[in-house]
Amino acid sequence: MAEALRVGIAGLGTVGASVARVLKSKSEELTRQCGREIVITAVSARDRSRDRGVDVSGVEWFDDPVALAQNADIDIFVELIGGDEGAARACVRAALEAGRHVVTANKALLAKHGLALAEIAEKKGVLLNYEAAVAGGIPVIKTLRESLAGNTVTRVFGILNGTCNYILTRMEAEGISFEECLKDAQRLGYAEADPTFDIEGHDTAHKLAILTSLAFGTKIAAGDIYMEGISNISQADIRAAEELGYRIKLLGVAQRTDSGIEQRVHPTMVPTASVIAQVHGVTNAVAIETDILGELLLSGPGAGGNATASAVVGDIADIAKSRPGFQHGPVFGRPAKELRPYKKAQIRSHAGGYFIRLTVHDRIGAFAAIARRMADNDISLESIVQRADASNDASQKTVILVTHETTESAVRKAVDGVTKDGHLVDKPQVIRIERAE
Amino acid sequence: MAEALRVGIAGLGTVGASVARVLKSKSEELTRQCGREIVITAVSARDRSRDRGVDVSGVEWFDDPVALAQNADIDIFVELIGGDEGAARACVRAALEAGRHVVTANKALLAKHGLALAEIAEKKGVLLNYEAAVAGGIPVIKTLRESLAGNTVTRVFGILNGTCNYILTRMEAEGISFEECLKDAQRLGYAEADPTFDIEGHDTAHKLAILTSLAFGTKIAAGDIYMEGISNISQADIRAAEELGYRIKLLGVAQRTDSGIEQRVHPTMVPTASVIAQVHGVTNAVAIETDILGELLLSGPGAGGNATASAVVGDIADIAKSRPGFQHGPVFGRPAKELRPYKKAQIRSHAGGYFIRLTVHDRIGAFAAIARRMADNDISLESIVQRADASNDASQKTVILVTHETTESAVRKAVDGVTKDGHLVDKPQVIRIERAE
Repeated sequence: MAEALRVGIAGLGTVGASVARVLKSKSEELTRQCGREIVITAVSARDRSRDRGVDVSGVEWFDDPVALAQNADIDIFVELIGGDEGAARACVRAALEAGRHVVTANKALLAKHGLALAEIAEKKGVLLNYEAAVAGGIPVIKTLRESLAGNTVTRVFGILNGTCNYILTRMEAEGISFEECLKDAQRLGYAEADPTFDIEGHDTAHKLAILTSLAFGTKIAAGDIYMEGISNISQADIRAAEELGYRIKLLGVAQRTDSGIEQRVHPTMVPTASVIAQVHGVTNAVAIETDILGELLLSGPGAGGNATASAVVGDIADIAKSRPGFQHGPVFGRPAKELRPYKKAQIRSHAGGYFIRLTVHDRIGAFAAIARRMADNDISLESIVQRADASNDASQKTVILVTHETTESAVRKAVDGVTKDGHLVDKPQVIRIERAE
Repeated sequence: MAEALRVGIAGLGTVGASVARVLKSKSEELTRQCGREIVITAVSARDRSRDRGVDVSGVEWFDDPVALAQNADIDIFVELIGGDEGAARACVRAALEAGRHVVTANKALLAKHGLALAEIAEKKGVLLNYEAAVAGGIPVIKTLRESLAGNTVTRVFGILNGTCNYILTRMEAEGISFEECLKDAQRLGYAEADPTFDIEGHDTAHKLAILTSLAFGTKIAAGDIYMEGISNISQADIRAAEELGYRIKLLGVAQRTDSGIEQRVHPTMVPTASVIAQVHGVTNAVAIETDILGELLLSGPGAGGNATASAVVGDIADIAKSRPGFQHGPVFGRPAKELRPYKKAQIRSHAGGYFIRLTVHDRIGAFAAIARRMADNDISLESIVQRADASNDASQKTVILVTHETTESAVRKAVDGVTKDGHLVDKPQVIRIERAE
């Protein structure tokens, strides 16, 4: 049997401890699968004394993860510290420069510095594996990087943030407000004390940036992503969606269009009968559309120590199965130097259906004015509902429009027009509709 | 750049022609991904003159696929002939013996001879890749073989036959009979002239046998699989399922239980709100449950030239990325010699919920007798519905029972008892209920 593969782990938080436990408890099975033993030989963590449910007493300890990356006797460096700068960036860089394979779960780091790190990995002929960075335990990186060779991806979209999906699922199931759901999610540990990063779409955007690069062979550009969070989704939206045969999900969507590559994160209406609409709670899902295969959907646990550890261990096992002399496939599917800059499609040129919910003063001519603004902007309507407002205020009405395919630009002009007409009681609500099977 | 990878394709039917087209049309992109060119250098097919929409005029032709496997100047042998014996078996064997990597889409061959072929591949140090053999373009083999390293699978189940799912979907959507749906499926090319292989579950069983081996590290044993087809599913079952919050799907299920490994193919009720219940038409889906990750679901096109070609090309690309010196992972996840025989769980020991639909003579005491038989066999009932029979025959009633978890053995005894009591007008219908998220 080949020599044991020596693993160094930097970061022994929830995920790190879970990775260590799996490597230890499944050692025999992993050896059988990989043809060699996988052994943790070095770790780096802040607190040596903490009980992590796994015995790491026999391994070399480093206070400095960079020292671990550079000096430890290891074949693979596993980065589970987190953060897009500081220690995480420094130690991943140092490990790659030292010719160690790297496995990381760090989406923020890859979204920001993935390209530069991939260049080092490819120059050094080592692997940089990051299955856990996007959608936790769902093998979407491997699918895009390996399984779909030969396919040209046309669209990739998904539910990439468990916190948002948990909140939207409970809002729909229990009829409670966003604020109430968020509080509960915080109490249950599904949302951070400062939930901005999750609920405003930043976390989804990081993951989407990585998927876009893999899917389209383009340079990672997280800054190009159009972003809207879920904090202004109300029960009125959820109920209206339900009646119209839709469900609201926070999606990250990357799509090849005539005007370039669209990358957007926003609340989205998906048909209730679609597979992705059934993805509830903290579960994640990614759909991939290609020219040859058609549409593929993967769903599963997107976060949590064990789900993330599962992906990290899969990445480690892949390296264990390789041997010196193996020419590894490129980090983002194509060599980092060949990842293309791309034309960014502006959100204004986005084409699709729209849901528009307006609260209007109940007076003669309001509805006609709305209809006129839509027609003036060439917006054709699939359905129009006018009814008593949920507020029970007789002086106002709710108007809900669902458009056929039109452009963001036309919708914005029309809605601005309606606002200028002075018929609106409240800010208009506009939610994009996404095709899904 | 490394030398080009030379591919020989045996079989240029729908899938073979599609593979050839993809390799040619995506040549540049594949080269970028794999770091070397992939070139078709030899083919074998019955008819040299047929137009397959791809130019194979420059490559070497072999009338005999075994000669291609043995003599052609190739690195990879792609078997797309089909069938579990004859030419397919002979040429795959010959290619492996000659030290060529093999890619195949042949589920029947693997279900029957996979173990013997894996032993040759592992002895020769070459790869035997077969992503296309199960669930077409869905990367379930790669997921089980690579991504889930370290996970212990507890259950794997799925919709593995597009023909059956197409028929069940249309029966539900249009209220038409099994026979009518089957005729339509045959007319549209979704079902064979002799549909037995699909509708009686044989095709699903072949695929399940491969998944079981990968999931549990056991020897392939297609003959052990309990099998029931969909031909006796009626509108009455579909409607009753709908009312109870279920949908009927033909599932292949392999599960680790206290009494051994269960492998079964049968019509199954899954909760309407589960993700797998939304998998419609010819689409396939596979759910994998493990101790670490939890539940993963993959869905997508399970058949057709392009979906199958996508998986075959992915397998070829994986080999193209490897280099001499690379120690390939074992064919079924563990070395073929270490795949374990296993204790087969008998279907009578299956534990789960059951749907039981009885058509009874409308007379005093019938219902009481049924309830008594259930109680005598310790079957606790979740719901009981008695109502007028759909036949509008006032002399008979329909009784629908949904049980809490019980055993197959108890249900069979109870139903036999009811039959003996003489209250039944018709054969009882029993459908297993499967947990699904």
